[in-house]
Amino acid sequence: MREREVIKLLSERLPIGDDCAAIPFKKTHLLLTTDMLHRQTDFPDKITPYTMGWRAVAVSLSDIAAMGGKPLGVVMALGAPKFERSLIEGLVAGATACCKLCQTGLLGGDTDRHDELTIVTTALGTTDRPTSRRGAQRDDLVGVTGDLGRTAAALRLFAEDKAEQANELLCFLPRLEEGQAIALWASSMTDISDGLARSLYQLGEASDVGFRLDATAIPFALEIEELARDQEELFEMGLYFGEDFELLFTLPQKYLLDARRLCEFTIIGQVVPREREIRMQLGSDWLTVEDRGYEH
Amino acid sequence: MREREVIKLLSERLPIGDDCAAIPFKKTHLLLTTDMLHRQTDFPDKITPYTMGWRAVAVSLSDIAAMGGKPLGVVMALGAPKFERSLIEGLVAGATACCKLCQTGLLGGDTDRHDELTIVTTALGTTDRPTSRRGAQRDDLVGVTGDLGRTAAALRLFAEDKAEQANELLCFLPRLEEGQAIALWASSMTDISDGLARSLYQLGEASDVGFRLDATAIPFALEIEELARDQEELFEMGLYFGEDFELLFTLPQKYLLDARRLCEFTIIGQVVPREREIRMQLGSDWLTVEDRGYEH
Repeated sequence: MREREVIKLLSERLPIGDDCAAIPFKKTHLLLTTDMLHRQTDFPDKITPYTMGWRAVAVSLSDIAAMGGKPLGVVMALGAPKFERSLIEGLVAGATACCKLCQTGLLGGDTDRHDELTIVTTALGTTDRPTSRRGAQRDDLVGVTGDLGRTAAALRLFAEDKAEQANELLCFLPRLEEGQAIALWASSMTDISDGLARSLYQLGEASDVGFRLDATAIPFALEIEELARDQEELFEMGLYFGEDFELLFTLPQKYLLDARRLCEFTIIGQVVPREREIRMQLGSDWLTVEDRGYEH
Repeated sequence: MREREVIKLLSERLPIGDDCAAIPFKKTHLLLTTDMLHRQTDFPDKITPYTMGWRAVAVSLSDIAAMGGKPLGVVMALGAPKFERSLIEGLVAGATACCKLCQTGLLGGDTDRHDELTIVTTALGTTDRPTSRRGAQRDDLVGVTGDLGRTAAALRLFAEDKAEQANELLCFLPRLEEGQAIALWASSMTDISDGLARSLYQLGEASDVGFRLDATAIPFALEIEELARDQEELFEMGLYFGEDFELLFTLPQKYLLDARRLCEFTIIGQVVPREREIRMQLGSDWLTVEDRGYEH
């Protein structure tokens, strides 16, 4: 089965569908999310242990952000073929630095010999009102935080032997402050782990809506605007490559100014009734946003 | 570095040392624990997907039990070379059955292609008063729940082609009820994931105490009493093999009857001042309990 089919099968048997599990507890909600990263699919050759540790934590904290949550702690399970001191120290330094910046801590974990370097992080968070992927309404605005394509740019920079710059790009900041602010007003939210295109289709399916985008409004990262040879490649890197971990959300129009006062984001389109395809306007053309993205 | 050295290095940098991280939250504590299991070291050839799913969940819930906690939920990250329907369905059935028996739920997860079948489960729990590995006092009694050596017996049964019986033995029940009851009275507690011997040394180090055991009181599983050819092998399977996931705890003598009223356990010895070695009495002999056990 493909990953998508597996998730469908699991979602028939388990109460899943959002970035985190939300567990009612003492008049609030606990958020719990787990992510597996490993050498072959998630870590380019020249990534440093620091960046791996940072990224492993940041990926899970991004899921907490997508539900409007505040983090309470992170644990990490680490499998490695060889426990070299430099690997462990680098991983822990990156992971704790990311935690610290997000005002949380790396609180424990498990270590195991494993043929392939494998890191699984789990983040715990809390929110009074979890924001889900369901709830987008016709005419809501579609917004994203930050800019798109930085992981795609990083991989290109690795190939060009600019490892330092690439590592910096990969140490992304989970959008926790933005998530908590946007959650006050948003009708739905998710993080863009599989790329903007795929995340839009997921949000559309969960909320039973469609989207129309303004391609010229999409905030592509400066790095991919420089690196991409043409528009096709720009879209490939910015819409489909994935692993950007920005927040994608829908917002009732009347709350736009309230939300703007609390954090920065870009409006890229509008919610419409569900259609077979999501389309984006580029000048006088309407282009199809394809339902594809990062698959593990 | 060996696993023990890695843990030492990590414990210098991170606030770890117990079975779970304990996070103060709304006048109680949240417990968070993560465990990595994978094909090569944790899953014998003829283990069923059901047993793997059960065991992955049970291992994490056992850590919640060891802190006296009540589970709130479990998430699972699954890496597999091929997502076959029978594998996924079996894993989910085993995992959810174990959760159900423990009055909790499998609430979410992550899936990923991985060369080696790898399952990381994380359990969330809560307790008003977490029981740690520190706190054992001289003259306290030493107790264990259940009986020891069932995983060792299961591996032997696999080798003898008795896969069904072996799978049953591996689907152990996390000692959550016992853990919650014992936590009311215990001075320290842990689960015996690395074997009784190694767990005693860990508890002794954390509490700065020693132990004297009565070898004839140690509750060896019926299965290993039948399978072991001699006493040496019995001790090997029951004290050192590990992966038993019973609870090991220390109890002030005055609370023995209170604790007995709430659950079943066996008293196997007493806390003494710290010594270089832990010893156990067998008739008129004193044998050394070696500081070794299951290492991943």
